[in-house]
Amino acid sequence: MTRVGVVGATGYAGAELVRILSGHPDVELTIITSRQHSGEMFDSIYPSMAGSVNLACEEFAADHICEKADVIFMALPHKLPMELVPGLIKQGKKVIDLSADFRFHDAAKYEAYYQQHTAKDLLEQSVYGLSEIYHGKIKNADLIGNPGCYPTSVLLPLIPMLKSKLIDFNSIIADSKSGVSGAGRSVSLTTHFCEANESFKAYKVAEHRHNPEMEEILSLESGQDVNITFVPHLVPMTRGMLTTIYADLLQGVSSDDVKNCFSSFYSGSPFIRVCPEGKFPDTLHVRGTNYCDIGFKLDLRNNRVILISVIDNLVKGAAGQAVQNMNIMLGLDETKGLMNVPFAV
Amino acid sequence: MTRVGVVGATGYAGAELVRILSGHPDVELTIITSRQHSGEMFDSIYPSMAGSVNLACEEFAADHICEKADVIFMALPHKLPMELVPGLIKQGKKVIDLSADFRFHDAAKYEAYYQQHTAKDLLEQSVYGLSEIYHGKIKNADLIGNPGCYPTSVLLPLIPMLKSKLIDFNSIIADSKSGVSGAGRSVSLTTHFCEANESFKAYKVAEHRHNPEMEEILSLESGQDVNITFVPHLVPMTRGMLTTIYADLLQGVSSDDVKNCFSSFYSGSPFIRVCPEGKFPDTLHVRGTNYCDIGFKLDLRNNRVILISVIDNLVKGAAGQAVQNMNIMLGLDETKGLMNVPFAV
Amino acid sequence: MTRVGVVGATGYAGAELVRILSGHPDVELTIITSRQHSGEMFDSIYPSMAGSVNLACEEFAADHICEKADVIFMALPHKLPMELVPGLIKQGKKVIDLSADFRFHDAAKYEAYYQQHTAKDLLEQSVYGLSEIYHGKIKNADLIGNPGCYPTSVLLPLIPMLKSKLIDFNSIIADSKSGVSGAGRSVSLTTHFCEANESFKAYKVAEHRHNPEMEEILSLESGQDVNITFVPHLVPMTRGMLTTIYADLLQGVSSDDVKNCFSSFYSGSPFIRVCPEGKFPDTLHVRGTNYCDIGFKLDLRNNRVILISVIDNLVKGAAGQAVQNMNIMLGLDETKGLMNVPFAV
Amino acid sequence: MTRVGVVGATGYAGAELVRILSGHPDVELTIITSRQHSGEMFDSIYPSMAGSVNLACEEFAADHICEKADVIFMALPHKLPMELVPGLIKQGKKVIDLSADFRFHDAAKYEAYYQQHTAKDLLEQSVYGLSEIYHGKIKNADLIGNPGCYPTSVLLPLIPMLKSKLIDFNSIIADSKSGVSGAGRSVSLTTHFCEANESFKAYKVAEHRHNPEMEEILSLESGQDVNITFVPHLVPMTRGMLTTIYADLLQGVSSDDVKNCFSSFYSGSPFIRVCPEGKFPDTLHVRGTNYCDIGFKLDLRNNRVILISVIDNLVKGAAGQAVQNMNIMLGLDETKGLMNVPFAV
Repeated sequence: MTRVGVVGATGYAGAELVRILSGHPDVELTIITSRQHSGEMFDSIYPSMAGSVNLACEEFAADHICEKADVIFMALPHKLPMELVPGLIKQGKKVIDLSADFRFHDAAKYEAYYQQHTAKDLLEQSVYGLSEIYHGKIKNADLIGNPGCYPTSVLLPLIPMLKSKLIDFNSIIADSKSGVSGAGRSVSLTTHFCEANESFKAYKVAEHRHNPEMEEILSLESGQDVNITFVPHLVPMTRGMLTTIYADLLQGVSSDDVKNCFSSFYSGSPFIRVCPEGKFPDTLHVRGTNYCDIGFKLDLRNNRVILISVIDNLVKGAAGQAVQNMNIMLGLDETKGLMNVPFAV
Repeated sequence: MTRVGVVGATGYAGAELVRILSGHPDVELTIITSRQHSGEMFDSIYPSMAGSVNLACEEFAADHICEKADVIFMALPHKLPMELVPGLIKQGKKVIDLSADFRFHDAAKYEAYYQQHTAKDLLEQSVYGLSEIYHGKIKNADLIGNPGCYPTSVLLPLIPMLKSKLIDFNSIIADSKSGVSGAGRSVSLTTHFCEANESFKAYKVAEHRHNPEMEEILSLESGQDVNITFVPHLVPMTRGMLTTIYADLLQGVSSDDVKNCFSSFYSGSPFIRVCPEGKFPDTLHVRGTNYCDIGFKLDLRNNRVILISVIDNLVKGAAGQAVQNMNIMLGLDETKGLMNVPFAV
Repeated sequence: MTRVGVVGATGYAGAELVRILSGHPDVELTIITSRQHSGEMFDSIYPSMAGSVNLACEEFAADHICEKADVIFMALPHKLPMELVPGLIKQGKKVIDLSADFRFHDAAKYEAYYQQHTAKDLLEQSVYGLSEIYHGKIKNADLIGNPGCYPTSVLLPLIPMLKSKLIDFNSIIADSKSGVSGAGRSVSLTTHFCEANESFKAYKVAEHRHNPEMEEILSLESGQDVNITFVPHLVPMTRGMLTTIYADLLQGVSSDDVKNCFSSFYSGSPFIRVCPEGKFPDTLHVRGTNYCDIGFKLDLRNNRVILISVIDNLVKGAAGQAVQNMNIMLGLDETKGLMNVPFAV
Repeated sequence: MTRVGVVGATGYAGAELVRILSGHPDVELTIITSRQHSGEMFDSIYPSMAGSVNLACEEFAADHICEKADVIFMALPHKLPMELVPGLIKQGKKVIDLSADFRFHDAAKYEAYYQQHTAKDLLEQSVYGLSEIYHGKIKNADLIGNPGCYPTSVLLPLIPMLKSKLIDFNSIIADSKSGVSGAGRSVSLTTHFCEANESFKAYKVAEHRHNPEMEEILSLESGQDVNITFVPHLVPMTRGMLTTIYADLLQGVSSDDVKNCFSSFYSGSPFIRVCPEGKFPDTLHVRGTNYCDIGFKLDLRNNRVILISVIDNLVKGAAGQAVQNMNIMLGLDETKGLMNVPFAV
């Protein structure tokens, strides 16, 4: 039984890790930390988990956590992980970091959107944890930079299309819509009930910091320098993310080409469900799951393809994919602990 | 591996049965029926379950279903079950009926609120499936009348109080609030998004047909003829039910008496969580779970106690309790298949 | 044209005052203040009102505000008004205070639930602004203690019943449900979208500080010492409040007695709409309006009556009633500025 | 006082017409019709309007309605209006039709997406009621084809850009998101609360029948044959529509060019509010109003502009714009009856 720990367990991504890991048959959750709630029982913060999670939140202490756990999940805001992770790696731990700190190969790109990077030497060994794409590298990794929710929803439908050379890499537009939990548990006016309810709005238009993350991976995978236009929006619902992608088709590409591209590319990927033609995905269908559902439609009048993906931003967009990566790293079936039957509504 | 079937699998309670039974480690879901969707794959109706449920809906046919399943769940509107269940019982099947048809001991009470009862002889052997209260009888039952959602939320906090003689049985008022899924999947103006959203309203004020169901059980358990005032309301959310109960305290009853009453009465009940004093339950904390959380407060100025219970109306209020009852009938641990770690949000 | 000012214009009640007063045909809104947003244009905080409200927020300064306005609305948290209002009254201004500071006749009751009262001498002259009940006194008042939202929803249906001696004053229970805007614009975990959405919960059970406010008025109106049990709940919607009241009927009271009581008591009250028998009010039907809709049902089996009221907590429960009071004070038709045709949905 | 009538008054667009016209100072609403609710009082269907609207629904009868009203609003599903409108026009009435029947100049385009057109001769005289663009023609029109909600949200930001030759007309993509009321009052599974709540999805991807409506107008206005890619989505909220438009900038276009384009084009348009740079519109800010708020951002890395518009789909997207058109036709100020101060939340 692998022992695991969660650093930053009381934010929404952290709590989702606690939920999934507590129900995972092959690991034992032995330690959780929280600066804000140190000393408190986890189920006093999240009473839903009373009876399922019987742990108190502790202060982060590198030595103590290394003693208690073999795999460590970091669910902290960026900047903190690059200070803490080197110490854990040095002690031989496997680390899965949910922040942006270890997602970039190119420190300059990180620094342009975040701040100075203080653990650049680890960037080379860290692996971008987009499970379906980097399965092989993840298997042997000690450090995972777990993808952002928006990049996950954009990259999973786009990469097969780019690799199969079905679309023009210069023409990509991604219009994303996220549930409010993506903004985390910190209170703010934007996420105040009365301001978010019955409201739909765009934010950080064409300047979200997930933009360079997507572009670095798309460029890597296509062998081209890919830029995309990305606009995120906020939806009055708790969980779920839908991304609508528009791209120009390369000459002669048919609906069957697109269909075959997805079905062959993802034939061995249990968490990717490609919608039957004429059906489109719905965030409600993936709520609480690690699935990414993908639909598509050719707009032949305009020579464009429309790709639509949905994920649960907290699961496949954060904690679920992190556990999927852990499964891969530990040589477990990648679906372990992640296959609760989804809700109808 | 016990083989189970669900009759009426495409309504919300039926779909919830399919969800839970598909993930249950000790049973195999072998057959599901649906008049409306006969011949269709279940996951074409509920795409969320694609990959988890690989069954087609069939027409109901008694012999065929008896061949395929040992335990049969009926998730049909009332009236149909009393026509179909006798045939299943005759073939030696165990039946758990989620309608009102087999909940009453006294056919006259049923007939006053529903219609003529055509299978009265089965009422004697049928057991009211309020799991925590009738555990012993459920164990040996072949036919369960699974409780309504409102009665579950009202009876679980009230019965211990009545049996311990802490409250005046003549003084009970239950003010219930239900999420919209309680109204089922059939479309109507009441459940039309724009009419239910941003709306809160009472309905069937003091004349809901769950009223006599509660009263029959309360009378039975207290040995008195108990009448209660019951008012249900509709909340703009999908899942969840909260009931606030008001009752006069009998002389000298203290807060500790109430606390001790609950903790001793429910000490062996894994699905009842009594809130620490000063904390009150929230429907969000039981969403998707089989828990019933109970809180209480003494209003000593008025010599009253306030009891508050929350359940997920589709789980503890319907499908979850039905599976709990099946577990008890089969001699399994009653939590089997029902202990997914709850969501934080 | 009467000149009016709003102190504390950027909270939800303040903004609602700004909305209503800006559209009022007989007054001119000349000054608004906000500590937090001093110097900012109101429509930069509430962009919805761009084009309708062209005022900058100012710091509160008694002399300046007295120069600019004849009627002053105070929309501040309690405690501040009792410091500021005496200065305004001394300068001969009419003041309508939306906090609790001037609602109580008995300072001791205020002090038991809030803090020491520092302007007790004004309590005698201040009038409780429940418009339909205290119309006569409001007409001649210089200082109004505008009622809380819960008391408004509880008192309007109860007072006619008590005054007509139809119910037992010892038996009253009020179960209230409020939209989230009642908690104001200050951010908190309780009003964080993901914690309030899909959640229903009780809070301050039998200890809300609106309780003594209701009781003081009920006692006054009935000539008895009335205590009630009051439990508020939070509904996942922005606006609206529904209160369900339970009381024992006095002997021989019939449904017609109740109906006649309401229709005669409120025959001259344009904002009270009594539902036809068998119909019950819905918060959606009063959203954005100053109406209080009232429905009722006799539960004769239990000798109880159930009264149900709905209001918009920000309008009849706060800003709308404040403007209604201003209309009365100024000798205007009480509906002036308050009769926008309500929305269908 | 102009007498007006509403045909089809009980759908959501019809009810919104009733709301606005009942509060309009210069017209009198004299007749409303409804097949489904003929003989019923309007306020028994929409109790919110009790006290504001005192009319019974009648069966449609051309002669009777022509006797009672001078301007007639048609709020029926398409196909019916082309049968009924010719008779009204013949009697010299002014007609504003909210269906698609009189929106197209080219009957073939209508017929490709709807059905055979049976009143083609009226297409020549009917004017497309996009108020800000066709103000001059509307003034003299007897028959208005009132625009669809999606076209309104797409055309208002696009037309100035196309006419000023700032964007490439071949590159336009419109990604729209609509509240559920856009689907009307007819019940369906898509608009069933539990299926729409906490759900976000696309529908009629690149094949919605508002597509040719937009394209006909864009082509007309740009003098080019414009095709666009249009994808609508459903948002879990009642009212509101946000459209995000992507287009390639023509060479050398700067942020100031775009800003100046909008401010000069819409300088005389009271219902268009252009957001200050760096701010983006929110559906909550236009709820219940006739405003169209427009924001924009240049994505210079990709040489694209992003335009974002929001409207209330039932007001500027339907009934409000219809009344604006009536105002123009009657020579009234176009804002008459449409300037209620908007809500903060």
